[in-house]
Amino acid sequence: MSTGNVQEKKHFFDVRVYYEDTDAGGIVYYANYLKFAERGRTEFLRHLGFNQQVLAREKNFCFVVSKASVAYLTPLRLDDVIEVQTTIESCSKISITFKQDLCVNGQCAAMLDVAVVGIDRKTGRPKALPQDIKEKMMEFMND
Amino acid sequence: MSTGNVQEKKHFFDVRVYYEDTDAGGIVYYANYLKFAERGRTEFLRHLGFNQQVLAREKNFCFVVSKASVAYLTPLRLDDVIEVQTTIESCSKISITFKQDLCVNGQCAAMLDVAVVGIDRKTGRPKALPQDIKEKMMEFMND
Amino acid sequence: MSTGNVQEKKHFFDVRVYYEDTDAGGIVYYANYLKFAERGRTEFLRHLGFNQQVLAREKNFCFVVSKASVAYLTPLRLDDVIEVQTTIESCSKISITFKQDLCVNGQCAAMLDVAVVGIDRKTGRPKALPQDIKEKMMEFMND
Amino acid sequence: MSTGNVQEKKHFFDVRVYYEDTDAGGIVYYANYLKFAERGRTEFLRHLGFNQQVLAREKNFCFVVSKASVAYLTPLRLDDVIEVQTTIESCSKISITFKQDLCVNGQCAAMLDVAVVGIDRKTGRPKALPQDIKEKMMEFMND
Repeated sequence: MSTGNVQEKKHFFDVRVYYEDTDAGGIVYYANYLKFAERGRTEFLRHLGFNQQVLAREKNFCFVVSKASVAYLTPLRLDDVIEVQTTIESCSKISITFKQDLCVNGQCAAMLDVAVVGIDRKTGRPKALPQDIKEKMMEFMND
Repeated sequence: MSTGNVQEKKHFFDVRVYYEDTDAGGIVYYANYLKFAERGRTEFLRHLGFNQQVLAREKNFCFVVSKASVAYLTPLRLDDVIEVQTTIESCSKISITFKQDLCVNGQCAAMLDVAVVGIDRKTGRPKALPQDIKEKMMEFMND
Repeated sequence: MSTGNVQEKKHFFDVRVYYEDTDAGGIVYYANYLKFAERGRTEFLRHLGFNQQVLAREKNFCFVVSKASVAYLTPLRLDDVIEVQTTIESCSKISITFKQDLCVNGQCAAMLDVAVVGIDRKTGRPKALPQDIKEKMMEFMND
Repeated sequence: MSTGNVQEKKHFFDVRVYYEDTDAGGIVYYANYLKFAERGRTEFLRHLGFNQQVLAREKNFCFVVSKASVAYLTPLRLDDVIEVQTTIESCSKISITFKQDLCVNGQCAAMLDVAVVGIDRKTGRPKALPQDIKEKMMEFMND
């Protein structure tokens, strides 16, 4: 199944809008933008060879979101194909900040900033990113 | 917080419909009827003194749904207050079958049958219901 | 974007399981099986050239689900790729009954029966299926 | 059904966490914090006597979210009772900015800022808030 593709330090992944994503206002429910963004980040990691279940099982390592913000520009609608564009804004020992755009037909409909933090999934305490993930993220950072 | 109330072998619990529950058709999305029903069953158990997290932690016991069916009679809509009515249809060593009605203003909008099975949450294998749960369920069965 | 493919009167469409689909039990939440099935039915119609928004706008025609039942065989899990298999069980003047299997690695994890009814989206009253949809559905029926 | 209560320019509304809200990480899925916040804002408006469906029907007036940000402090968990605390940060001719805290047992688990904009639900264009809503919001603003 497609894990999207990468071009010039950016990851691209398409998602389709279904009835489940919309609300009685006739457009996509505002919380669901975060679902599309999460699919984009997960596929970005998968595309780079990282599987979050394996990280959890083998290294007790999990990501949790510590901050998320969304600017809603134009409504997403039923049947839209959304291109989730993901870039790395910054990366520290224990956290990554993603910049994500949700685009339809080449137009940006929403912009997100999402910070995730590494934790030990047993203790819940902050935990340094695995070295290989950190290195990959650094490669994707814009100078 | 309210756990509903019980009258003549039936449990009653009210839930409100929000934007998140609706879809672009202007009515509640069909899968979300199962969410309302699950809240009803959870509050029914809580009302009787059973907490599913405690069961999981102390007895490694979990319920999983093995069968669910819904008959959709009239649409549920934004702002509706749904009365979830729950009764016990049958109860065996390892399973319970619930009959649930979702009612608005005294009218039944949907009817559900939901069968749950007890499992060991580590092995995933079928596991007998705790004796106190089984006894309570038997009391609620209609003769 | 892929609308799946068709082989011997059956439609196949792949969906990926994300965190949003799972629950604290570690597996896919039972209501979300209906979401995957709905994506399958929507892509089946799209694959055949029918777009539900166009039907609504041009013919005031909508489908609503009148009955749904799910048999849960084995749990769906995070990262699973689910093949949604859709066939037509029956088709009348105003309704279609779908049979849908959710399969992972060639094994059936859940079986669904879903009946949809055509309605006039303004009055909410039953409305005959457009002739071209009905004809296509008849072609897909198993003898 | 309860619409919460108001004390010193703050609205309080309790919501319960169910399985549907959690994910395989064992905690509430990050997008669902926005659902709880929306329920709080809707009940705040309802508590003040404003019904969004009536506004839509009678005045063609809708709110859409233009910006939302969440700071996740501690995880929300299954069975938690969340107190959604809502205050008004600012209010202009066409928009309202809410500050919302999600608290469990007196401790703040997440802080949100949510800006909504009034639109004409037919044209989608910005539309001035109804005068009575604006006045009520001004009363709730902190000096």
